[in-house]
Amino acid sequence: MGVSIAVVGATGAVGQEILRVLEQRRTPVDRIRLFASEKSRGGETTFRGERVPLEMLAPGSFRGFDAVLLSAGATVSRTAVPQAISEGALAIDNSSAFREDPDVPLVVPEVNAHRLGEAHGIVANPNCTAAILLMALAPLHRAFGVKRVIVASYQAVSGKGARAMAECEAQTRDVLAGRPAVPSVFPKPIAFNVLPHVDLFESDGRTREEIKVERETRKILEHPTLALDATCVRVPVLRCHSEAVTVELERPCSPEEARDLWRRSPGVTVVDEPARNGYPTPLDAEGGDDVLVGRVRRATVFERGLSFWCVGDQLRKGAALNAVQILEHAIPKSVAAASPAIR
Amino acid sequence: MGVSIAVVGATGAVGQEILRVLEQRRTPVDRIRLFASEKSRGGETTFRGERVPLEMLAPGSFRGFDAVLLSAGATVSRTAVPQAISEGALAIDNSSAFREDPDVPLVVPEVNAHRLGEAHGIVANPNCTAAILLMALAPLHRAFGVKRVIVASYQAVSGKGARAMAECEAQTRDVLAGRPAVPSVFPKPIAFNVLPHVDLFESDGRTREEIKVERETRKILEHPTLALDATCVRVPVLRCHSEAVTVELERPCSPEEARDLWRRSPGVTVVDEPARNGYPTPLDAEGGDDVLVGRVRRATVFERGLSFWCVGDQLRKGAALNAVQILEHAIPKSVAAASPAIR
Repeated sequence: MGVSIAVVGATGAVGQEILRVLEQRRTPVDRIRLFASEKSRGGETTFRGERVPLEMLAPGSFRGFDAVLLSAGATVSRTAVPQAISEGALAIDNSSAFREDPDVPLVVPEVNAHRLGEAHGIVANPNCTAAILLMALAPLHRAFGVKRVIVASYQAVSGKGARAMAECEAQTRDVLAGRPAVPSVFPKPIAFNVLPHVDLFESDGRTREEIKVERETRKILEHPTLALDATCVRVPVLRCHSEAVTVELERPCSPEEARDLWRRSPGVTVVDEPARNGYPTPLDAEGGDDVLVGRVRRATVFERGLSFWCVGDQLRKGAALNAVQILEHAIPKSVAAASPAIR
Repeated sequence: MGVSIAVVGATGAVGQEILRVLEQRRTPVDRIRLFASEKSRGGETTFRGERVPLEMLAPGSFRGFDAVLLSAGATVSRTAVPQAISEGALAIDNSSAFREDPDVPLVVPEVNAHRLGEAHGIVANPNCTAAILLMALAPLHRAFGVKRVIVASYQAVSGKGARAMAECEAQTRDVLAGRPAVPSVFPKPIAFNVLPHVDLFESDGRTREEIKVERETRKILEHPTLALDATCVRVPVLRCHSEAVTVELERPCSPEEARDLWRRSPGVTVVDEPARNGYPTPLDAEGGDDVLVGRVRRATVFERGLSFWCVGDQLRKGAALNAVQILEHAIPKSVAAASPAIR
């Protein structure tokens, strides 16, 4: 007996990745319903080689289902999550709508799976940049205590969805052909350019993305006094977010100790042999489950400081994979005997 | 009566930019000799619409010339700089060969032109990432005292020369056509990727680029105890380096005060109206003289902290323009009555 799930936002970049992750992990899905927006009415998509119709949300859509995985943005989640709860399905929400709610567990299973027991029908999936950072930061925090974090991100265009990927590719073709890059999804040209602008600006000069990284990291580490400054930057990379991180620790930690710690941490792979050009790049992390960590070195700005570089596939660990891992932890019958070890 | 100059490395990305800067600033150049490597033997290049032959260096090449601007790498500079000095020409060296020598002034004219008086025949031009950072950092340091700096860079491929630009474009075409990206100049694919790797790795895990940014910033600010951690990253941008910077200051400085200070700083332009997407990007800085500063906001990791984003054309302020500015300060007859105001 397997699990029954609904996926809301099934045609989006994350929705499609959820279907791939379910296939790859051989999650025992007995029944699946896929929901998309009005413009997909009458369409279908493929799951395990079979055609599945794309449906529109309606009252009762989730009745009799174990879980609903939502990746259709905060506006949709604000109505679809309460519907899932009232219809008896666990909502695993990839939007930012409920992440800061103190009554809603915000979970990266490797870090705080213990919070799942507190879920009242909804678990929030964190922001992708925060999730990737947390995979590297949480083991450090547990072992050595993290006091301050400075992070600069190099975020892929697919973080803004499939249309943003298409715009990046189209603009790049235009520039190479000597034509102007015409922005539409992004506010400025992204081809051969970088934009220090992810999500909307707030009045303090930070972007919502930068605020999410700060607040969600604090919440997931259960470290409300953590000082964290992020600069979030979009780069012309199609997939995978990279992050340059400098941390101050409570207790001394050498680069060797940090690498040893990460080697023992589920979901983390150390790639750190600079003499042989061994360091992670977005292309290395693409399609993989682990967050790759490298460029580990002392940071001299702090007495007990460390700098490192981490890269993760933001559609997987930053979104789809993490959501499916939450499903596996929350609803054990979703774990197949044949599936890879769950971390 | 104008100035007589030689340019060593005249066919490279920086050498060509030096010729453009001399044209644009209408530097009164009476005589010019252009030197290039063996593979340019018999060739020529254009300066002020006239063809100038490319020559090979030989004893006596610089005799009777006021200054030699060198941009052919550290190996060439190690022999050509002593030759220039012995032949009576001021060497303005863009390589890293002499920058750390305590007897050699390392100059960004807006910051430390006063050091030019100490030159014994040679002035060093700083690393491009350091020069751009310093344009923003020096005014802050003078007014508020800078204690700690954390910087993550987004460096253009042209910083590695014309062949690197060609590789980035060719790889990008290949990827868009579904062909594999084959790296040659860069150690890994740069198309739709980012590499946390600029210059060679040292045994402490840092790159030489990261070490240069630390040491050159200390030397130019005359601040030997400055704590600075850099992560230098190559991005698929053709021209202009961007930097995400977080600083701790000795004295409190609000974002408003910092913007006011930068508005009064020669060579700096503030672009900071987030509500209208007013922030600098590499494409905005291309071909310009000023370093653009934006995204100014409080940094919470420090009690007196500030974060900002700065972007500069690394072939101009990071190299060619700075070298020509040094020429203008060191040899006043190189300043044309008609040239733009020298900063």
